[in-house]
Amino acid sequence: MRIVILGAGNIATTLAPALARVGHEIAQVYSRTLHSCLILNQRLQTAGQEPLLTNSLTDIITDADLYVYALPDDVIPDVASLLKTNSRSVHLLVAGTVAMSVFDSKQRKAVMYPFQSFSRQKEVDLRGVPMLIEAGDDETLREVKQLAQQLSDKVFEANLEERCRLHLAGVLVNNFTNHLYNIAKQQLDRANLPFDLLLPLIDYTAQKVHQMTPEQAQTGPAVRHDEHTIGINMSLLDNPTHRQLYQLFTQDIQG
Amino acid sequence: MRIVILGAGNIATTLAPALARVGHEIAQVYSRTLHSCLILNQRLQTAGQEPLLTNSLTDIITDADLYVYALPDDVIPDVASLLKTNSRSVHLLVAGTVAMSVFDSKQRKAVMYPFQSFSRQKEVDLRGVPMLIEAGDDETLREVKQLAQQLSDKVFEANLEERCRLHLAGVLVNNFTNHLYNIAKQQLDRANLPFDLLLPLIDYTAQKVHQMTPEQAQTGPAVRHDEHTIGINMSLLDNPTHRQLYQLFTQDIQG
Repeated sequence: MRIVILGAGNIATTLAPALARVGHEIAQVYSRTLHSCLILNQRLQTAGQEPLLTNSLTDIITDADLYVYALPDDVIPDVASLLKTNSRSVHLLVAGTVAMSVFDSKQRKAVMYPFQSFSRQKEVDLRGVPMLIEAGDDETLREVKQLAQQLSDKVFEANLEERCRLHLAGVLVNNFTNHLYNIAKQQLDRANLPFDLLLPLIDYTAQKVHQMTPEQAQTGPAVRHDEHTIGINMSLLDNPTHRQLYQLFTQDIQG
Repeated sequence: MRIVILGAGNIATTLAPALARVGHEIAQVYSRTLHSCLILNQRLQTAGQEPLLTNSLTDIITDADLYVYALPDDVIPDVASLLKTNSRSVHLLVAGTVAMSVFDSKQRKAVMYPFQSFSRQKEVDLRGVPMLIEAGDDETLREVKQLAQQLSDKVFEANLEERCRLHLAGVLVNNFTNHLYNIAKQQLDRANLPFDLLLPLIDYTAQKVHQMTPEQAQTGPAVRHDEHTIGINMSLLDNPTHRQLYQLFTQDIQG
C-alpha cells in the first residue's frame, strides 16, 4: 500500500518504520512542525524509504491507499474535515478513544489501535503489542485485519466502547501504577533509601499476574484485615491525598 | 551458627533453606501447626538438614546462637516473652514494622528485614533482595551484617521508621498496584477482552522505572491535562470508589 502518515509523534515514529519494514511504501509524512519529523525521517531512511515531508494539509497527496491519523485526539477532527482524498482511500485512526464518526460518512474508515505506551526514543517491537481493529465496512475490515496481522500476533476486533475500556485499563496499569511508584519514592526519599530497593518487588508484582489473576495475587495488610499494620502505614502518611488513596484502596481491597 | 526458626510460613520457608545453603545449621523449627512445616522440612532435607520439629514453645532448645522470629506480627510479643534462651543468643526479627523493644532489654536483639513478597510455593533467590538490618548493640550488628551479606548483595542499615517507610512503599508498589491490575481486569471483563492484553503494558511500566524516575516516566491524560480523555475514562467508571480513586490520582499527578 501507498501510505500517508499524518503526525510525527511517538506513535507515528513507531508505526511508520514498522509499516515500511513489512513492505509498504510510506509516500508522505505530514507534521505541523517539520523539525519533529527528524527521528521519524531517519528511521524511514534506514528502512529504505524517502517520503515527502510537508507541514501543509493542502500539499498532501490525494491518491494514497491509506491515511494514518497519528495525531493528538483534539487535532483529528480538523484534519479529517480538511483532508481531501480519493474515495477508495482508507482513513485509519490509531487512537483508543476516538470514534470513526469523526470521518465523513462516505469515506472508507477504520481503526487500528496499538495498545502500548510508545516513546520516540525507544523502539518497540510491535509483534507482541495487541492491535484492536474496527472498520466502517466488511471490505475495509478485511484489509485492516491483514495489515494489523502483518505487524502484530495479537489482533482483536473491538468497538469504540471496548477500546475505551481497554484504554481506561491502560491508564490504571500504566499511569496510575507509575504514580504509585512515585508516591512510594517520596517515602523512600524521606528514609534516605534509594528507589532501586523497590525494583525487585515492582518486577515481582508485574510478573505475578502472568501466572495468576490479580485477585489471586493480592496480599498485604488490607486483604489480611491487619488493622495494626494499616495503622502503622497510615501514621507515616501526612499528605491528605495520599491518606485518602490509602483508605480507598484498603476499603476496595476488603470489598 | 546453630539456628532455631520460629514459624513455618512464607518467610520461614524461604529464609531457612537459604541459611542452610550458606552453611548454617537449622537445629529446630517451631510451628504451632506442624502440618504447615511440611514444605519447609522438605526443603531443609534437600539442603542436607534434619531439624527437630516442635509445636510447643517449652520444647525449644535454649542454647542456639540465633532465634529467627518468622511469625505473624501479632504473635511475636507472646513468643518473645515466653521463650527462654541463654544470654548469648541473638533474637532476630525479620518483619518490617515490628520494633526491637518487643524483646527483653537484656537480650541480644536484631532485625534483618528481607524486602520482598514471599510465597511458600515459589522459591526466591535472596541475592537480589534488599536486607534492612538493625541491632541492639554494635557486636550484634556486626554479626547480623555478616549473616545478611551471606544471603544478599544489598544490605542496608535502617532504623524502625526507615523500615516502616520502606514497608509502606512496598504496600504501594505491590498491594495497591496489584489492586489497580484488578480494577483494570474488571474493565476488560466488561469488554470481553482477555486480561493478557495488559501484560505488555504492565511489564513496560515496571521496566521503565529501571531507567528513569517515576516522575520522568509519567505519561497519560492527567499529566497532559487532557480533560476530554479524562471525561471519557470517567464516563466508564460506575463504581463510586473507583471514580474517587480516578479523581484522586488525576489530582495528585497534576500536583
